[in-house]
Amino acid sequence: MPTDLDLAGEFDWEPAFHDCDPMGVVWHGHYFKYLEHARCALLRRFDYDYPQMQASGWLWPVVDARIKYVRPLRYAQPLKIRAEIVEWENRLRLNYRIHDAQSGEKLTSAFTIQVAVHPVSGQMQYVCPAVLWQKLGVLPA
Amino acid sequence: MPTDLDLAGEFDWEPAFHDCDPMGVVWHGHYFKYLEHARCALLRRFDYDYPQMQASGWLWPVVDARIKYVRPLRYAQPLKIRAEIVEWENRLRLNYRIHDAQSGEKLTSAFTIQVAVHPVSGQMQYVCPAVLWQKLGVLPA
Amino acid sequence: MPTDLDLAGEFDWEPAFHDCDPMGVVWHGHYFKYLEHARCALLRRFDYDYPQMQASGWLWPVVDARIKYVRPLRYAQPLKIRAEIVEWENRLRLNYRIHDAQSGEKLTSAFTIQVAVHPVSGQMQYVCPAVLWQKLGVLPA
Amino acid sequence: MPTDLDLAGEFDWEPAFHDCDPMGVVWHGHYFKYLEHARCALLRRFDYDYPQMQASGWLWPVVDARIKYVRPLRYAQPLKIRAEIVEWENRLRLNYRIHDAQSGEKLTSAFTIQVAVHPVSGQMQYVCPAVLWQKLGVLPA
Repeated sequence: MPTDLDLAGEFDWEPAFHDCDPMGVVWHGHYFKYLEHARCALLRRFDYDYPQMQASGWLWPVVDARIKYVRPLRYAQPLKIRAEIVEWENRLRLNYRIHDAQSGEKLTSAFTIQVAVHPVSGQMQYVCPAVLWQKLGVLPA
Repeated sequence: MPTDLDLAGEFDWEPAFHDCDPMGVVWHGHYFKYLEHARCALLRRFDYDYPQMQASGWLWPVVDARIKYVRPLRYAQPLKIRAEIVEWENRLRLNYRIHDAQSGEKLTSAFTIQVAVHPVSGQMQYVCPAVLWQKLGVLPA
Repeated sequence: MPTDLDLAGEFDWEPAFHDCDPMGVVWHGHYFKYLEHARCALLRRFDYDYPQMQASGWLWPVVDARIKYVRPLRYAQPLKIRAEIVEWENRLRLNYRIHDAQSGEKLTSAFTIQVAVHPVSGQMQYVCPAVLWQKLGVLPA
Repeated sequence: MPTDLDLAGEFDWEPAFHDCDPMGVVWHGHYFKYLEHARCALLRRFDYDYPQMQASGWLWPVVDARIKYVRPLRYAQPLKIRAEIVEWENRLRLNYRIHDAQSGEKLTSAFTIQVAVHPVSGQMQYVCPAVLWQKLGVLPA
């Protein structure tokens, strides 16, 4: 079974000027782009990023998300975005933490939940398809 | 004291092409723009939108947000976005619901929580400043 | 043949907070979203917006664009965005002008050029497909 | 005087899923974010990125931009974005080219023009302030 390290990854990022609002900090909705950068980088390591999801015959829309903004993010601030797969049986849940790369201070915590949807029927799956487990190298309970 | 109707508002919206992703639906992070349209329209009614917030000497960053994606949003789909102020004592919380304008089907539910921050000290306020109550026409408990 | 009025339309808009940058004005790249709002509203009038383009068997990617930023756009500033179809024979060109809705002052001018592309072959068409002319009610020279 | 190499830089990039539209390619307006990544990386090398511009007492809004979309950009496609400063006397002009990192194929060409604006008076400068030349290590004609 995978250890924590196997299912987590860290992504370096620096906020762009076009993501900063008149308060001089990253606008709260743009964080989801940063989380996606980290999520895709992690899933790519397992050969199950968006193109492979589609090729496997499943869509994986985000159905639930939460984000806590602990401290603002600033233009060009070096960040570490940690993404970790924490559920894979019935749904794919990732937890995220954004840290200042220099001080290590925690700036944000978040999660996203995705479920498998059949592209033709639009039917949501209540158990994740086996391809996810094969890709991640995990076993359901 | 305000009734429910006093602190809620509805906003008409149709998703743009540039908000739709390769799955043909609105990308999940863009919803926060739609919520902001509805929140600003509501707060403007109380003369306490972003410019008035700033003029009142307070910043109101979003510190927490959750969103549940019940059904996808599609290009040019007529939507009703309902925003309602449900907390104002210690923090400003709004609940949101997005409905299909024609069928009335619920497509999304969400909330955002904002707190007052002093722009110079950066100090977060644990009780909302009185200006919020005056603008909303509410009394703290 | 159409007169100028037939092939132009005006769209009301107010910039959102999330489109404003740390200088307090709309970030220059977001203007293309505003132009798209006006372009789609106009093309919808001719029953040839994105969905109808796709249904007609053609893609219409933007292949060239220019924008001159005369005066900044500000948060919640009431705007008139005028879009006008000025070429339709070999390519679809629209000119745009953004004005302040109150003063009438010109704030922006721009154009976009789209060409028809066959979705399977990817072949760019050097003459616009006849469906465009039928939808617009125009004749090629 | 600087040679071509001195005033140009290259930036690696891969389009994100959230930048791709229902046609499966990067939506045309998002390119300006990519150009900004390359421009900021280049200007940072000269210690004259946004924060240093502001500290120098000048704003540098983009007043003119053009972009030619030669070939579409696709999700996760490795790109090289080349930015080059080609005018600095009366205005700051950069030319851009986006290439496929593997094949070298040219995908996009563009330019942006910025002018110095005094932040208090809002007065546009018809000659670039000397700080730009000092930072870039160039001389006006």
